[in-house]
Amino acid sequence: MQWVKGLGLGLGAAALLALGIILGHFAIPQNSPSISATQDLDLEILETVMGQLDASRIRENLRELSREPHLASSSRDEALVQLLLQRWTDPASGLDSAEAFEYEVLLSFPSQEQPNSVDVVGSAGDVLYSCRRSEENLTGEQGGPDVVPPYAAYAPPGTPQGLLVYANQGREEDFTELQTQGITLEGTIALTRYGGIGRGAKAVNAAKYGVAGVLVYTDPGDINDGLSLPNETFPNSWYLPPSGVERGSYYEYFGDPLTPYLPANPSSFRLDLTNVSGFPPIPTQPIGFQDAKVLLCNLNGSLAPAAWQGALGCDYRLGPGFHPEGDFPEDSQVNVSVHNHLQLRNSSNVLGIIRGAVEPDRYVLYGNHRDSWVHGAVDPSSGTAVLLELSRILGTLLKKGTWRPRRSIMFASWGAEEFGLIGSTEFTEEFFSKLQERTVAYLNVDISVFANATLRVQGTPPVQSVIFSAAKEIRSPGPGDLSIYDNWIRYFNRSSPVYGLVPSLGSLGAGSDYAPFIHFLGISSMDIAYTYDRSKTSARIYPTYHTAFDTFDYVDKFVDPGFSSHQAVARTAGSVILRLSDSLFLPLNVSDYSDTLRSFLQAAQQDLGALLEQHSISLEPLVTAVEKFEAAAAALGRYMSTLQKGSPDPLQVRMLNDQLMLLERTFLNPRAFPEERYYSHVLWAPRTGSTATFPGLANACSRAGDTSPGSEAWAEVQRQLSIVVVALEGAAATLRPVADL
Amino acid sequence: MQWVKGLGLGLGAAALLALGIILGHFAIPQNSPSISATQDLDLEILETVMGQLDASRIRENLRELSREPHLASSSRDEALVQLLLQRWTDPASGLDSAEAFEYEVLLSFPSQEQPNSVDVVGSAGDVLYSCRRSEENLTGEQGGPDVVPPYAAYAPPGTPQGLLVYANQGREEDFTELQTQGITLEGTIALTRYGGIGRGAKAVNAAKYGVAGVLVYTDPGDINDGLSLPNETFPNSWYLPPSGVERGSYYEYFGDPLTPYLPANPSSFRLDLTNVSGFPPIPTQPIGFQDAKVLLCNLNGSLAPAAWQGALGCDYRLGPGFHPEGDFPEDSQVNVSVHNHLQLRNSSNVLGIIRGAVEPDRYVLYGNHRDSWVHGAVDPSSGTAVLLELSRILGTLLKKGTWRPRRSIMFASWGAEEFGLIGSTEFTEEFFSKLQERTVAYLNVDISVFANATLRVQGTPPVQSVIFSAAKEIRSPGPGDLSIYDNWIRYFNRSSPVYGLVPSLGSLGAGSDYAPFIHFLGISSMDIAYTYDRSKTSARIYPTYHTAFDTFDYVDKFVDPGFSSHQAVARTAGSVILRLSDSLFLPLNVSDYSDTLRSFLQAAQQDLGALLEQHSISLEPLVTAVEKFEAAAAALGRYMSTLQKGSPDPLQVRMLNDQLMLLERTFLNPRAFPEERYYSHVLWAPRTGSTATFPGLANACSRAGDTSPGSEAWAEVQRQLSIVVVALEGAAATLRPVADL
Repeated sequence: MQWVKGLGLGLGAAALLALGIILGHFAIPQNSPSISATQDLDLEILETVMGQLDASRIRENLRELSREPHLASSSRDEALVQLLLQRWTDPASGLDSAEAFEYEVLLSFPSQEQPNSVDVVGSAGDVLYSCRRSEENLTGEQGGPDVVPPYAAYAPPGTPQGLLVYANQGREEDFTELQTQGITLEGTIALTRYGGIGRGAKAVNAAKYGVAGVLVYTDPGDINDGLSLPNETFPNSWYLPPSGVERGSYYEYFGDPLTPYLPANPSSFRLDLTNVSGFPPIPTQPIGFQDAKVLLCNLNGSLAPAAWQGALGCDYRLGPGFHPEGDFPEDSQVNVSVHNHLQLRNSSNVLGIIRGAVEPDRYVLYGNHRDSWVHGAVDPSSGTAVLLELSRILGTLLKKGTWRPRRSIMFASWGAEEFGLIGSTEFTEEFFSKLQERTVAYLNVDISVFANATLRVQGTPPVQSVIFSAAKEIRSPGPGDLSIYDNWIRYFNRSSPVYGLVPSLGSLGAGSDYAPFIHFLGISSMDIAYTYDRSKTSARIYPTYHTAFDTFDYVDKFVDPGFSSHQAVARTAGSVILRLSDSLFLPLNVSDYSDTLRSFLQAAQQDLGALLEQHSISLEPLVTAVEKFEAAAAALGRYMSTLQKGSPDPLQVRMLNDQLMLLERTFLNPRAFPEERYYSHVLWAPRTGSTATFPGLANACSRAGDTSPGSEAWAEVQRQLSIVVVALEGAAATLRPVADL
Repeated sequence: MQWVKGLGLGLGAAALLALGIILGHFAIPQNSPSISATQDLDLEILETVMGQLDASRIRENLRELSREPHLASSSRDEALVQLLLQRWTDPASGLDSAEAFEYEVLLSFPSQEQPNSVDVVGSAGDVLYSCRRSEENLTGEQGGPDVVPPYAAYAPPGTPQGLLVYANQGREEDFTELQTQGITLEGTIALTRYGGIGRGAKAVNAAKYGVAGVLVYTDPGDINDGLSLPNETFPNSWYLPPSGVERGSYYEYFGDPLTPYLPANPSSFRLDLTNVSGFPPIPTQPIGFQDAKVLLCNLNGSLAPAAWQGALGCDYRLGPGFHPEGDFPEDSQVNVSVHNHLQLRNSSNVLGIIRGAVEPDRYVLYGNHRDSWVHGAVDPSSGTAVLLELSRILGTLLKKGTWRPRRSIMFASWGAEEFGLIGSTEFTEEFFSKLQERTVAYLNVDISVFANATLRVQGTPPVQSVIFSAAKEIRSPGPGDLSIYDNWIRYFNRSSPVYGLVPSLGSLGAGSDYAPFIHFLGISSMDIAYTYDRSKTSARIYPTYHTAFDTFDYVDKFVDPGFSSHQAVARTAGSVILRLSDSLFLPLNVSDYSDTLRSFLQAAQQDLGALLEQHSISLEPLVTAVEKFEAAAAALGRYMSTLQKGSPDPLQVRMLNDQLMLLERTFLNPRAFPEERYYSHVLWAPRTGSTATFPGLANACSRAGDTSPGSEAWAEVQRQLSIVVVALEGAAATLRPVADL
């Protein structure tokens, strides 16, 4: 590696300065400071930004953003598009450019003429009880035409009626349990509670057993730490009031349902509705626990298993039908009337760009969705409030001419996320190539503050180092004088073979807009938020999630009074963005993937090794591949420190950074999981099993199970093993010295 | 575009020099000249290389390479691997590194114990006539154990026997013609001639009509300009002797048949043979026209159509069976005994690398296959002889320390191409990510000289400019004092809206090792050779193609006496490689794609417009996308000239070059043609129709035909239209200023 050894040599400081001046000169856009091609992150700028991120301004942003309901494609959603454009084109604090990108996407809404309803109906067809059709107007913000009534987006219209059964969380095993208890499910209405599995999956499972309609409610035991009385809940506490109903998308995939893999432009090919998959097969409607209590506590039949019991203050029974001594005649049925309709609507993303001074073709992306279910103060406006404060401060430095990033920074406000990450997915479909070739990393801050206890990060290994660096430098809110890092490690930690005890990152599923970036484009991604002390609450998520009670006052009074957690998230996000955009060497530590691969490998050996051996499938090639990756990553690390010690020239740095940036891409294989829409990342595709290991291999093994040795299923296991081996070998090859194969 | 305007300004020559010295310093590998990061192609070096490329050394290379038969995976093939390694590691003329990469691939061979045979058999089972089992040993080189007997690789074993029919070229329409003539094809043996369609397709079509076995021969009318007598053919002329038989692969796809999309490493997952598709369904055997004449001229039945007649000196009849007044009893049948077997064999690629001084992570690839059917003097050794001469000269300059390229150059000798581009395909599968991210272009020189008339180039539009530049600077061999370019334009030309009359490039199919690079990786590729004056011969290809008569003497006496055409190809290849490796700005003119897109669009409007309108499918989005591409490409061209006029810094150049290099990648869509293995390039996938236009759209239209408006087929037409629109929009986006979306 002569060319590596050569690097340190013979460049005097003066010459470097000269080089800096010369190169810097080229890179001067309008009203910008002189930036040299070898300039590193400016710690003073970082300090300035950290200091200027203002909690009270975040609070004012949130007040404005959550002032009115802004459901995707509503007039208020469109007004917020204009607000973002105005902020990002402000002469004093705007960015270099800002633009709205509109798509025509398929959304689902309840009918205004025929409200969805859930009634208990007597044998004569007389209505004995009607569930609420909207939430109680407790603070004056739960009324009005812009508050969309509770509904299950993409659930089909229909008016099934039948005996009620209780199906726990609507998991496959819940329905089999009911069957084994001898309950006929055909034609019944299944009452289920949120949790366990995704929303849409409950209806999918129910339909398999002949269930005609599904109800979903939030049990106080799952969301309110058991509390359910009006005086114990919002507006008297942060807990969900009895009438609160979680809305949500029941679509099983993400992206616009009619244009998979294609941007939803007006002229794009659209699937015929009959060919669309992933919608709930039967009518489904969510209700509040106030109504769920009436239904559930009157149920007949045998006692539900202990694990199925909740906090409604009665014994949960399985049904079918109602208890003779209850409020309703034994033969009363439940009628579920769903009148949702699908509609093609315009939804926009807003992109704001700060042009990089030295490497404008390298993009650091920071995004959040804009659309909410109702006022959406926490979800998503707490994230957008932070995003707007950071873009204001960076924009101001930019307009003053005191700073310009080395690389381009793109701020994104995504549309229609609540319906299935639609805006962000269409964006990745439209700009697939250039994003994949040029994006350094994607930072997602959706709900920025669930609670005030600790930072919580989901991300792929290369982003660990930059988040750690940021978190160590920022003071944690709340008592004590800990850094965000030192506070974080108390709540989430793991023992790393390399570093010892470190905060643990969660892995990225499909819960927010990072999904298309990591799974479809293979871009290193992360999602950060402040969240709960799990020793203090067992709430599945913050109690007013997706309800009309998620308002500014709710955040201001209960979630983050003083907005210090919002500020902490803003500082963390700001520091991460600046480190990614301005560091001479990209702060993506690819060797941190070695930890993950090692643990995936060990898990595979422990969980699958024996079974695979029985079918004479050896994990040796996988062991070798992991070792090759570890060696290549370590060698690259050593090469990088050599470069850093010396005085690298800009092209040397660019070449190394390209290796770091593109590593995540090497794990993509669009042919690995043809049935999993958008999932191409061989390490992070959905896993059916609970063990954290190579998903393709693990899923194939569980499918193969005890099929005969020669089966197609066992061939698929071998194919999946080869796919991950080839991906790891390719990753190692990408990290090796660039003139080697 | 402030950052563009800023570029030219204020960099003094002195400062540029300083910059050059500084940056150059870093880039000094061992024993190399000082190369600055902004140095451009050195015309003196180019002149030196052009001057040193030595025809007599190419001749000596060819003599050595074609001395013995070197069928893929044979001992001589392995010996040539060693020869290449030795040449490329030579202390005085070698490269920086050279390595062999071995794969375990599925090949097909005839049995040595049971030779394949074709006999005429009487009703009593008595053999009345036997076709030759090997070619006549006319020059002493057609005998011996290393000369593989003629066979159809991958044709299944079997011994079908039946009445003979003549099926012309074995096209679908040829068999329907026989049917309409009332001929029962069930159980027959079909005699077909080479040409019209691919080898494997003849057996595929035949099997559909119940044919039991297929014979394939080369008609003197198709290969010998009608000549067929011994004194008219080799060794008395370049024409094919009567006993000559074209061998070849009858596999319909490319790459190792058992490991699609995976490198054929020993541990890789392999398909079960029962799941392999693309092999001929019925026994097939090629024969010489000497034997074909005996069979064909004795056929019974009605006269074949005029277009089916050939130059065997008799009326071609259709059969079935033989003519009563002929050499065989009327009820005689033909027995085809095929004893081919499949075998896993080791086959190696050899890669030789010259490390780039400034951008080692940018690869210029130049390759050819090494394996032949017999001696393979023309195919492929004429290309390898050129490759070795160029690598010797560049290696010598390298070892002397007088030159090192800006970018890395990789020389490749592929294995097992004759069986289906196997070595090159496995290479692209193993190094998919890094090749796709870093490869500037791929140059293929397989058969370097078919004949001495003119240069012939196949390639994608971005390579046109670099080939033109090279061809204009090199003197054409033969009479007159024309440049290769001026000679070329006399044989192949087109009128370009931009340039007027220019030499025309052919498009890249799957005829040689460029296929996986352009279709699977989306790397700009080209294939060059010297070829025929079509006014002087109608030969389908050079007459001894894939026979035992393709020997050194054949080339030396008939194909290129004096090797001046070999030298011309070497100079063209050398100039192209140096321009790609050493030019400061990549000589890939992306705006030359505008011509192609325009003509594709016009063809689509003319051929498909009306039909599409009937189904209310508008081509407007496609028109807009083409216009966007044209505008972006033109703007990028203007930006590039601004940069070139000024004194660009290395990063500015790198960013622009990345746009040029990656453009071809933006046309890839791995989900566009799921049924077409490896074909992901939306502009160059196989077309069923004859019009040069967007293949996905055209194919979908012809499939949809007159199916009902709402049909799946018409939905696919719309999907294909959207796929190409999105690809063009993405390409335009990649060419736009890098900080814009």
